Formats: sequence, structure tokens, C-alpha cells
Amino acid sequence: MGGVQSFRQLCDRPKNTNVRISLPVVCTVWQLAMIILFGVFIRYDIEADPHWIDYRKANNISSDIENDFYYRYPSFQDVHVMIFVGFGFLMTFLKRYSFGGVGFNFLISAFGIQWALLMQGWFHSLDYTDGKIKIGIENLINADFCVASCLIAYGAVLGKVSPVQLMVMTLFGVTLYAVEEYIILNLIHAKDAGGSMVIHAFGAYYGLFISWMLYRPNLHQSSRLQGSLYHSDVFTVIGTLFLWMFWPSFNSAIANHGDGQLRAVINTYLSLGASVLTTVAISSLYNKHGKLDMVHIQNATLAGGVAVGTAAEFMLMPYGSVIVGSCCGIISTLGYIHVTPFLEKRLKIHDTCGVHNLHGMPAVVGGIVGAVTAACATTAAYGTEGLVETFDFTGDFKDMTPSQQGGHQAAGLCVALCFGVGGGILVGGILRLPIWGDPADDNCFNDDVYWEVPDEEEENIPPIIQYNSHMQNKDVVESDFTLEHRDLKA
Amino acid sequence: MGGVQSFRQLCDRPKNTNVRISLPVVCTVWQLAMIILFGVFIRYDIEADPHWIDYRKANNISSDIENDFYYRYPSFQDVHVMIFVGFGFLMTFLKRYSFGGVGFNFLISAFGIQWALLMQGWFHSLDYTDGKIKIGIENLINADFCVASCLIAYGAVLGKVSPVQLMVMTLFGVTLYAVEEYIILNLIHAKDAGGSMVIHAFGAYYGLFISWMLYRPNLHQSSRLQGSLYHSDVFTVIGTLFLWMFWPSFNSAIANHGDGQLRAVINTYLSLGASVLTTVAISSLYNKHGKLDMVHIQNATLAGGVAVGTAAEFMLMPYGSVIVGSCCGIISTLGYIHVTPFLEKRLKIHDTCGVHNLHGMPAVVGGIVGAVTAACATTAAYGTEGLVETFDFTGDFKDMTPSQQGGHQAAGLCVALCFGVGGGILVGGILRLPIWGDPADDNCFNDDVYWEVPDEEEENIPPIIQYNSHMQNKDVVESDFTLEHRDLKA
Amino acid sequence: MGGVQSFRQLCDRPKNTNVRISLPVVCTVWQLAMIILFGVFIRYDIEADPHWIDYRKANNISSDIENDFYYRYPSFQDVHVMIFVGFGFLMTFLKRYSFGGVGFNFLISAFGIQWALLMQGWFHSLDYTDGKIKIGIENLINADFCVASCLIAYGAVLGKVSPVQLMVMTLFGVTLYAVEEYIILNLIHAKDAGGSMVIHAFGAYYGLFISWMLYRPNLHQSSRLQGSLYHSDVFTVIGTLFLWMFWPSFNSAIANHGDGQLRAVINTYLSLGASVLTTVAISSLYNKHGKLDMVHIQNATLAGGVAVGTAAEFMLMPYGSVIVGSCCGIISTLGYIHVTPFLEKRLKIHDTCGVHNLHGMPAVVGGIVGAVTAACATTAAYGTEGLVETFDFTGDFKDMTPSQQGGHQAAGLCVALCFGVGGGILVGGILRLPIWGDPADDNCFNDDVYWEVPDEEEENIPPIIQYNSHMQNKDVVESDFTLEHRDLKA
Repeated sequence: MGGVQSFRQLCDRPKNTNVRISLPVVCTVWQLAMIILFGVFIRYDIEADPHWIDYRKANNISSDIENDFYYRYPSFQDVHVMIFVGFGFLMTFLKRYSFGGVGFNFLISAFGIQWALLMQGWFHSLDYTDGKIKIGIENLINADFCVASCLIAYGAVLGKVSPVQLMVMTLFGVTLYAVEEYIILNLIHAKDAGGSMVIHAFGAYYGLFISWMLYRPNLHQSSRLQGSLYHSDVFTVIGTLFLWMFWPSFNSAIANHGDGQLRAVINTYLSLGASVLTTVAISSLYNKHGKLDMVHIQNATLAGGVAVGTAAEFMLMPYGSVIVGSCCGIISTLGYIHVTPFLEKRLKIHDTCGVHNLHGMPAVVGGIVGAVTAACATTAAYGTEGLVETFDFTGDFKDMTPSQQGGHQAAGLCVALCFGVGGGILVGGILRLPIWGDPADDNCFNDDVYWEVPDEEEENIPPIIQYNSHMQNKDVVESDFTLEHRDLKA
Repeated sequence: MGGVQSFRQLCDRPKNTNVRISLPVVCTVWQLAMIILFGVFIRYDIEADPHWIDYRKANNISSDIENDFYYRYPSFQDVHVMIFVGFGFLMTFLKRYSFGGVGFNFLISAFGIQWALLMQGWFHSLDYTDGKIKIGIENLINADFCVASCLIAYGAVLGKVSPVQLMVMTLFGVTLYAVEEYIILNLIHAKDAGGSMVIHAFGAYYGLFISWMLYRPNLHQSSRLQGSLYHSDVFTVIGTLFLWMFWPSFNSAIANHGDGQLRAVINTYLSLGASVLTTVAISSLYNKHGKLDMVHIQNATLAGGVAVGTAAEFMLMPYGSVIVGSCCGIISTLGYIHVTPFLEKRLKIHDTCGVHNLHGMPAVVGGIVGAVTAACATTAAYGTEGLVETFDFTGDFKDMTPSQQGGHQAAGLCVALCFGVGGGILVGGILRLPIWGDPADDNCFNDDVYWEVPDEEEENIPPIIQYNSHMQNKDVVESDFTLEHRDLKA
Repeated sequence: MGGVQSFRQLCDRPKNTNVRISLPVVCTVWQLAMIILFGVFIRYDIEADPHWIDYRKANNISSDIENDFYYRYPSFQDVHVMIFVGFGFLMTFLKRYSFGGVGFNFLISAFGIQWALLMQGWFHSLDYTDGKIKIGIENLINADFCVASCLIAYGAVLGKVSPVQLMVMTLFGVTLYAVEEYIILNLIHAKDAGGSMVIHAFGAYYGLFISWMLYRPNLHQSSRLQGSLYHSDVFTVIGTLFLWMFWPSFNSAIANHGDGQLRAVINTYLSLGASVLTTVAISSLYNKHGKLDMVHIQNATLAGGVAVGTAAEFMLMPYGSVIVGSCCGIISTLGYIHVTPFLEKRLKIHDTCGVHNLHGMPAVVGGIVGAVTAACATTAAYGTEGLVETFDFTGDFKDMTPSQQGGHQAAGLCVALCFGVGGGILVGGILRLPIWGDPADDNCFNDDVYWEVPDEEEENIPPIIQYNSHMQNKDVVESDFTLEHRDLKA
């Protein structure tokens, strides 16, 4: 009897969610590490260096406007908005986890971009002459991209983890991302302008398998907090719309100058438009009264952007983009209706935001679309020079054919999925250690655990007392008060 | 007796708002039509085509930065934000129609931009050598512009129509817009950089006359839902501000490169600034206690942007912009105070958002300002080349004089108004058919009809139970609960 | 006895907050003044003038893309968003002052930019050949910058002043700013790309000393309205994020073309990222349960942007930016914990938004960092031409050395502080006159005083009555109603 009881006590032992030591320590140590590593490794690119003026003259660059800054800065700012406002507000829908949704998104992004500059820098921007990483505008965009994959993963575990776990998840996520990206883009030579594979497929499965490792069988007990409120749903629409509107910038941000960037914009714009209509169609069709489900509108409308990520820069053609967007709106909405419950019940993967529907499946579609589009590329469609430039058939890869490129694209998708699944299992295992301050089942989806939340009892605003101009108001409010007091006394 | 009763029953027959069949069908059919038409007609412009590199060399274009993409993409993204967040959130003010305001805005915009690419493409971007529409960045901007007119119209009927009606309204609205725009800009050769006439005047009267055709005499019964809430008003301010801030981009997005774009920005910036002050002055002056009305601040502050639309690119001069903005702030605010009640009571036009004040009247002012400014243009002010470039006095119109141009501008305004009124009556008639699933008077302005709305009863968040760190909180909450239970038992 | 009583009556005399005369008069008179002064003084810059085409040819400018518009317009729009949405929503956190926070921010910005164009124009853009101010895109950015300083000052007095007082504060604030900016940038020849000194230091102390002059000893009585609500805190995060994301544009908007702008972006991006982590660390550390305080996340995360303002364009180096950001996140958060209560209790400075922590202290740090970075500049780091271009060692200043520049930077900081303190005391004195309609202590932080606020009692949305599809809902709602009625009857 005593043994059973003590075992039960052990199991019931309340979780310690006090992160007063762990969170400051993690933030401080990692920020100190950033300072040291930045000091040792990171310098300005020539385009951000005062020697640019000498470089311009030496390389016969006619004007400052040729600085890559002017090609990419508007896109960078749009991507930046997607990361912080887009992903952040997309995660405010829970009735009592808006602070955590947007706040922790802010925290891990701010850490992630610093760590990504280093990790991606070592792989892509290392100047071997002096051993320094030289950063310019493209590095900032890539850092934001890298962080996006971790934010996608956050969507799967939203409300169920502590900020310390999120920091650990981001540290490993960024690291894995940098390796995976290097393998896919540089070794395999796949193209992935909008990151369907490297960002979305990796991020989604990384998050889903972390969620699988952290599965909470009794989570339905706190399901009363898992819904949304009318107002919190409107906040989420802010996130949805900023993602939707700026997705053309996301997919074109690091595309080739000139036609490449513009083509990526057009393809993404069209695909996203189509997603909205099919999402609405399916959402209404699957409701008994034909009513729309806000969850679908908030998420599945974005699937088109994910799905044209890889092929955004290719000659997908306007109708191709519309077809891809239409299909992914359908797939993603059906995912919310059928796949999410299946994942939770059968595979024990609880996916708070439905990232499998918004990022996972559309990303796989996007990878396949990319492979097919690449394999079908012809000199007629691209022009001789255009083909070389679009697919970067230079250097070691100058003899590649489009059909080979298609194979490489497919291989890239597989690598992204493997890294996502493997990384998720690995990091999920680490996050199961009982030292990270994660919340008890009862406290999931509850900001009260990690945030000082304002007292809502005071929402009942007291009357103002103003002598000259408010008499009529005062009377009204007073009678309200009388009513209330009567209730309490009764 | 029986006859009267059965007639009454017929009248009282509840409206069927179940759009489970009609909405999916409309969305699917129209999206399929888009796929087919895009497949047949739409191709990339040379600036978005991989052959751009060959074109550049052939035409001696020195750099990728000369691609129109880099001239217009930042403006395009700003316009995109205005369409989806600006107009969307401007329509969230109703206490129980925020989902419908921003959600249906999203739906019809996403459909409208696809249909606009086709309709405007046939008129403006058809390549007669191969019968294809070639789209580039300017087409995307124009599609957004076109949709803006339908969103303005939506403002007049907000809360009183079904999503199916909105899709029909957008289909016809875009079609009429493309015809009207072709007549005004190409046949009449009026200039309208910011679309005071083609977008705002057309859109406002299109919506108002649809609303007139759909007049509901007993709508005051559901007036309890027609107000706003404190929080929903703040959401609307998001829409107001994004429209206000990005209006300079709207008016300059398709202006001439160089000085034309910058002049449009300066004029719009100044006009909008002036509108704010006069709006505040009138709003305060007309309130018994000098208090500001949020409706005026949310809407009339934008009137200056509408009113300098046509003349934005002209030599309106900074003080001219300030004068126009000041006047339109006054006109628009007085419109909310005097004209909207008049329209509703006397003319039976119910205008939910007050688009007549924000778009209708300022657009007429804007058309007139454009005509006068054009008629007064001199070679001294514009320079010889500047005059030709600003007013596009080339080709068939190379012998036009500024005073003639003024007449053409006025004619353009008339055409826009005629299309608005005529189109509104026509489409309003179609929308009166009893097949579109529109809501009963009682259900107007109510999201419950077309949306799954989260249960608000749970807003009363239950206490968290956490053993180690929340004892004091728990006590407080428990006593709250006790009180509540006492109420119920009493 | 009678004398005491009448004196008490005089003291207790309710404040007249009716601004029905004063607000319209101030708005109208000042807008009329703007029209006249714009008519007399303001004209388009050559880059916004139709003669640009002639100028281009005369000056051998190869392309329209060389128009400064294309270098700076994206940054301008980002700055514009910071002013209206960033600062505006940052001030919506009070539970009952969201209208005033974002609405008055809108009002004074719209006035301020017009007055700033004139004031700054006289100092910086006066064309002595014709006595006109010639405005281009850089003037618009500078006007936004100038207004930012007044919005910072508004943060200190938020909720405690009338809109008329704010207009007066802005009139004087813009005037003082223009003088101070001219002294610092032109006479002292300090550099201040991101305005740590001219904007933030001046604005913060200007606001704080106004608040000191307007100190209300009994304000704690209305402290029930001084807190935030869950939803209003989320609105504030919108402001925080748009400031945070676009701060790189703020600091780079008027930096030198090319490397200067890009370097400012990189420095600001890194500094802001670091601020987030140290803010979280300190916020968690100082809470008994390790919980985060939303106030810190909303504000202190931005301190890094303020602190790299002056040095943004210098060779601060990436690690330097990270160090500065890290330190200022700590300083600013500690400011909220320790300095704000100290200021209020000991120095009688009530600082509603904590501008001393977000702008005041980081700005002083920023000024010092700028001085040190300038003093340490070497030809090796900047290159010969780069050094001249970065610090503008031309004309009268062509013989300056970096160490001299460091001294000038320090002098600039002192001037900014003196103008802030002196201007605050002066303008605060003016605002103490009993003619401005300021609210009584009881009515501080209450929108009811200056705004028509919607009735919240109706938030209790009545049930919809719909015959065909809502039977189950109707039942639920009815039983709710029964419960409520029972309460009232009991």
C-alpha cells in the first residue's frame, strides 16, 4: 500500500514551472556566447563596409543602387514582418495563451536569428582568407528564414512547453537547419527559393516529432483552454493576413535578381489567391450548416504559399501556380478536418496549430511540384542563358540536365524530411528531461504559468465622476452597480 | 382570414441562410474557370520571363535594377496591405461581425484579383502576336486596385448580404470596373493615378446603389448589433492606420517613374495629414461635450487620400494638397453627421460603413480637382517634356492641350459615376433574387449566420491549479467561484 | 469658516474637460496657418518636379532609379508605420485609454509632420535663390523623425493631458526639435543617423519634465484605471513588434547611400535581437515566480534600437551592436523595476509609459557609444574615402580628426539633454495654465472624457433567432438567459 501510494505521489508530484533560474541563465549564457562568437567570427560584408566605395570603383560598379541592399531590403522587411507579426499573431488564437504565443515567438526568433547568422555563416559565408563570416543583407534574410522553421515547429507544441524548452528547441533547430540546408542546397544542388523543403518540410516534421515525444495522454483535461475567443480569433487574422500578403516577398527574397524575383512574386501571389477560394469551399462544404470555420480561414489559405516555395522561381506558369494553390487549399483544409484528429488519436501527435496541415503536407506537395517542374524545364521555355541562371548550372554542375535536377530536387525533399523526423525525435528526447520547467497538463495553454497576467476582474470599469458633463452617464452606471450589488447580497 | 394568414406566413418565412451548397459551388466553379482561363490566356511578361536576360542585352539595359519590379514592388506590397489589412480591418468595427468584415473581405479580394488579371489583361495587356495576356508587376498592382473598388462597395452592404452575394457582386464589379477603366483611361484619355474616379467614385456608387436595391425597411430591429465595441473599434483603427500610412504608395504605385511617383507621394502625404486635423475639429465641434467620435477618426481622416488620387501626379503643389485634404476632412465628417442619416431616411440607402462619406463625396471632389489642375497646367510649371510625360500627350493625343485634358478629366468622372449608379442598380437587381442565402433582418450584422463562432461563455477562465507557486492566486479565485455559485443557488 | 469653505470649493471646482471650443479652434487655426505657410514657402524638390527629366539630362543621370525616392522610399514607409502604428499601438495598453493612446497619437503626428516640414525646411532645405523650401523624400522622413520625439514625450504624459495640451506640446516640441537638430547636426557637426540624441534623448526628457511640471500628487486615486487588460496588452504588442521590426529602417533611413544604409540595418538588427534576450532574463529573474512581465517585453526589447541610433552608421562592428543591445535590454528592464518608482516617489515625475527606461537612458548610452565609436575611428577600418564619407569631413570640417568628432558627439548629447530639460520645463509651465481642458485626477486614463465610447453593456450579445438551422443553439442560449433572469429576480 505504502509503495503504491509513494509511487502515485511521485507521479502526481506537481511540476515545477518556476523558470526563475533556468530562463535567465539560458538567456544570459547564450547571449554571452553570441557576443563572444560574434566578436571572433562576424564582420561586415564588403557591401556593408566603408571600403564599398573603393570596391565600387575597382569593380566598375556605376552606382550605389547596385548594392544588393536595394534589391533585397524591401523583401527583407516583409519577411521580418512575417516572422515576428505573422507567425507571432498566428499563435494568439488560444483564449488564454496570446502572451505566450506572440511573446515566446518573439523570444526564440530574437535568439534564433543570432545563432542562425553564425551557423549559416560558417557554412555559406565564411571568408577563408581571414576565417571570418562576412554578413550582408542576404544573411539577414537567411537568418529570418532559418528561424521560420523553428517557429513552425513551435506551432506544433504551442502551449505545452516552457520557454526554456523553446530555447533548447531553437538552438538545436537552427543547428539542424543549417546542416540540412547546406546538404540540400550545396551538396545535392537542389534549388529552393521559398524553402518549401528546407524551411517548411523540415520545420513541420521537426515540430511534430517533438510533439510526439512529448505526448501528454491526459491533455484533454485542459481542453477547456484549448479553444479560441472571438477577439483572439481576430488577433490571429492579423497574423494570417501579414503572412498571406508578404508571402510573395518570402518566396522571392533570395531569388535571382530581375526576372527571378518577379516570377517568384507572381507565382506566389496567384497560388495564394487560389488557396483562399478552395479553403472557403471545403470549409463550408464540411459544415452541417455551411458555416465557415475560422481555423481553416486562418491557416489553410496560406497553404498555396508553402506549396509554390520551391518552384516559385521556375517556369511554373501562372496557371500552374493557380492549380497548385487550389489543390493545397483543399488538402490543407481536409487536413484540419480529418488528419489532425487522426494524428492525435492514432499516432499520438498533438498538433496545436495544425502545422501538419499548413506546412507539412503543402511542403511535401511543394517539393514534388519543384522536382517535376525542374525535370520538365526546356531551353525553349527558359532560353539557354535563362536555364543556366535559373538552375545555376555552373561550376561543378555545368553539365547537369533538367531531368537530373528533378532527381536532385526529390533527393532534397527526402533529406529535409529525414532531418525533420530524426531531429524531432532526438530533440524531443532531450526535452523530456524533467529539468526544463514544462507545465502540468492542467496548466497547458495557460499564460498564468509564465506571465504576470493583468487582473481581469477590474474589466468592470468603475463609473467616472465628472460634474459638468456626465450626469446622464453617471446615473446609468449607478443603477448598474445597484443591480450587481443586489446579486451579491441575494 | 386564411389567405391573410398564409400570406403572412409567406412573408415571415424564415430566410434560408444555409450556404452549404451555393458557396462551395460558386467558389469551386469560379476557381476552375480561373484555372482554365489562366491556362489559355495568361503568361509572364518579359520582365518576369527567363528570357529577360536576353531582352536586357538586346535592349541595352545596363542592369537588373532597371526591371520595373524594383521601381514598383515596395509600392505593390503597401497596396496589398491596404487591400487585405486596411480594408479588412476597417470593417471589423461591428460588435458581432468582425469575422465577416475581415473574412469576406479576404475571400472576395482573393477571387477578385484573379478575375481582374484576366479582365484588365484583355483590355490592357493583350499581346496581339500570340493572343496571350502578359503579366508583370504593374498588372498585380492594377488587380489590387480593381479589387479595391469592390471592397468599397462591400462597405456599403456590410453585414446585410451573404458571401455568395458578395462573390456575385465582385464578379460583376470587376467586370464593370475593367470596362469603365478602359473607357476612362484609354478612350477618353483621362489620367487617374490614384483612382479617385475609376476606383473610388465607381466603387462607392456601385455599392450604394446595390444597397438601395437591397433596402431593408425594418433593419432598425437589428440595430442592437449595429454598434461597435471598445475593442472592435481598436481593431478598426488598425485598418484605418494601414490605409492612411500606405495611401501615398497607393496613389504613386502606377505613377510615372521618378518625379511622378515622388510627387504623388508628397501630395498624398500632405493631404492626409490635413484631413486628420479638420476631421478632429468637426467631430469635436458637433458633439455636445466636445467629445470625438471614433467613427469619424476611423474614416474621415482618410478622405484626403481619396481626394488627391486623380491629381496626385499633377502639379497640385504642396499647399494645394493641404487645402484639398483640409476640405475633404470637413466634407467627410459632415457627411457622417448629416448625409448618412439623410440617405437612409429619405433615399432609402443604408450605408453601413459610410462609404459615401469616405469614398463617394471625396472622390467627386478628387475628380473635379483633377480636372481643374489639368486644365491649369502650363509649360512653365511642368517644362515642355514634363508636360508631355505627365499627361502622356503622345500618339493620338499629341496635340492635346491642358484645357482639353481638363475637359476629358471631367468626362471621365461622369463615366465613373454612370457606371457606378447603373452597375449598382443592375447588380442590385440580380442580388434581390431569393437564391443567394442572404440573412433575415434579425440576423444582419451577425457572424453566427455564416461562421462557427467560439462559445463566449467560457471567457470566464477557470482557475489554474498549481501547487508550488500559486497558492495565493488559488485562494482568490476560489472565493470568486464561491460567490458565483452562491448567485446561482440563490 | 466661510473663507475656508469657499477656498475648498475653489480647489474642488470640477475641471472643465469640455474641449468643444478649444480643440476645434486649435485644429482649425493651425491648419489654416499650415495652408498659408505652405503656400508661401513650400515647393517640390527637383526630384519631385516635372523638370526632373531636364535635370537628369543636364546632370548626366542615367536612369530614373537614381532618384533618391528609390533609395529611401521603402525606409520611409517603414518609419511611417513606426510613427502611426508603432508608437500608436504601444500606447493602447491602458484598460480604458486605447482610443486616446492611438487616436491622439494620430492627431499630433498628423499636425506635427506638417509643422516639422516647415521648421526643418527653414533650417535645412531653404533655397536661398527664391526663398522657398524644396521638399523631397528625405524631408518627409525627417518630419516623421521630428514627430517621433513628440510622441516619445506623449508617452510620459499619456492619460493625464487633454488633446489641446498635446497640440500645444507638439507645436513647441517640433519647434525646439528643429532648433536643437540644427545646432547638433549643422553647428556642432555631430552625426546622428538614428537620432539617439536628437530624437530620443530630447524627446524623453522633454516629456519627463513636462510630466514633472504637471505632477498630480493624488493620481494614485485613479490607479484603478492605470493597469492593462489582457486584450489591451496584446494590442500593445502590435505596436512593439512594428517598432522592433522596422527599427533597422528607422536607423538607416537617412544614412548614406550604399554601405551606410546597410551597415545601419545590420547594427540595428543585431542590437535589437540581443535586447530581447537580456530583457527576458532580467524580467524573469526579478519576479518571485520567474514569470515574465509584459511591460518589459513590450518596451525594454526596443532599447537596443535606441542605443545604436547614433552609431548605427559607424563601424560599431556586429559584436559591438550585440554588446550595446544586451546592455540596454538590462538597463531598460532594471529601469522599469527600480527607476520608474524612484522617479515618481522621489522626483515627482510620473512616467506613464516608462519613456525614461525605453528612450531616456538608452539614448544617453547611445550618445556615449556614438562618441566613443567616432573617437576610435581609424583610416584602417573605414578606408580614406570611407572615413570622409561616413563622418562627412568635408567643407569647413575637412580637417577634423575622429577624436575631435568624438568630442563633438558628446557635445551634441549635452545639447539634446539641455533642450529636453529646458524645453520640458518651459512648455510644462505653459501647460499648467488652467485653460487647456485637462482632466481631473479621477478622470485620468479614461477615454470617456474626450471620446464617445460605445456602450459595453450590450457586449452581452442577444441570441439569434433563426428557424431552420439553429435550433440547438437557440436552446442553449435560452437556458443561459433563464439563469441570468433568475439571478436578477432572486
